[in-house]
Amino acid sequence: MLNLASETNQRWLDQVDDHIKDILIDHAHCEKKAAGCAMNLIFAYVDKTDLCQELSEIVNEELEHFMMVLDLLKRRDIVFRKLTPSLYGRQLNELVRKFEPDRAVDRLLVACLIEARSCERFNLLQKHMEGRDNELADFYGSLFESEARHHTTYVKMAKLFQPEDTVKARLKEMALDEAKIIADVYPLPRMHS
Amino acid sequence: MLNLASETNQRWLDQVDDHIKDILIDHAHCEKKAAGCAMNLIFAYVDKTDLCQELSEIVNEELEHFMMVLDLLKRRDIVFRKLTPSLYGRQLNELVRKFEPDRAVDRLLVACLIEARSCERFNLLQKHMEGRDNELADFYGSLFESEARHHTTYVKMAKLFQPEDTVKARLKEMALDEAKIIADVYPLPRMHS
Repeated sequence: MLNLASETNQRWLDQVDDHIKDILIDHAHCEKKAAGCAMNLIFAYVDKTDLCQELSEIVNEELEHFMMVLDLLKRRDIVFRKLTPSLYGRQLNELVRKFEPDRAVDRLLVACLIEARSCERFNLLQKHMEGRDNELADFYGSLFESEARHHTTYVKMAKLFQPEDTVKARLKEMALDEAKIIADVYPLPRMHS
Repeated sequence: MLNLASETNQRWLDQVDDHIKDILIDHAHCEKKAAGCAMNLIFAYVDKTDLCQELSEIVNEELEHFMMVLDLLKRRDIVFRKLTPSLYGRQLNELVRKFEPDRAVDRLLVACLIEARSCERFNLLQKHMEGRDNELADFYGSLFESEARHHTTYVKMAKLFQPEDTVKARLKEMALDEAKIIADVYPLPRMHS
């Protein structure tokens, strides 16, 4: 359902347990970056009104999540600070082809895969935190649904640029690359390590 | 109340009457750029939570306005397209000093002055369009209030970086520059020509 080619393993959950503060700080940065990425897509494809409408809603929701994570950090006395990001986003962006309309499709599918992976991990975190930290379990549960929706919306948007079959084939291909990238252990604890 | 050092004159209103389609298209781009500018400020000053909260709300409102202008264009069968921007934004950004915290204050005050000028012009347009084009009069009226609020919010945010007196003095100085920049006639019809 999420178009991912792999499942997150126990190694990452162990990393989460050992470094929940860094995971939460990185999570805030991820929500901010998700909003920024949707905004960049508005600037790049501003002549497509339907796309701009969908992306505006995504920007709003991601910024809302960003503020939710900042609130959570505040409640837990965790100081929000800059953090070296994992290489995940950068490596995914290297997959984007140079020329239109391939470029648009790839940018939208990279966003789709990031949403999908986040969604998969929120689901995992929700279950993992139940009983351990119920506030966090509820928090991750509340984010799951919108990330799943964004993931679907990004695929739908890609179909504005190329036929459905072409988009589906490319998504399958990129999902395999994503699985390789996320499996390549990033040493610091991050949402996508 | 708006901290501007000059008033928009009849020349611009004449330009509007002759080129309302281009003015509306440029307006859509301005709303998009206002959202983008607030987003950039979030990225630049992400460690200031209060600032991020205010800026997130501004991003959301500007994107909402962007969609409102796109809807209006659609209703009037005006094709939204790329448009050379006036030099207004670029010239204002050239006033921004290089080093922090001056840089933050200047970036916020540039945003403040753009909101103020837009607000002044929306008010003018509302009155100008009454009886001529009531839909547009209502439209500009509906935007006036939030632009005025954003203008005030940007000044408030600048005070997070420097004392009130310093900010006020700098705003007065920059308002004089803004008045010179807007008086320098940009030949094509734009929101800030």
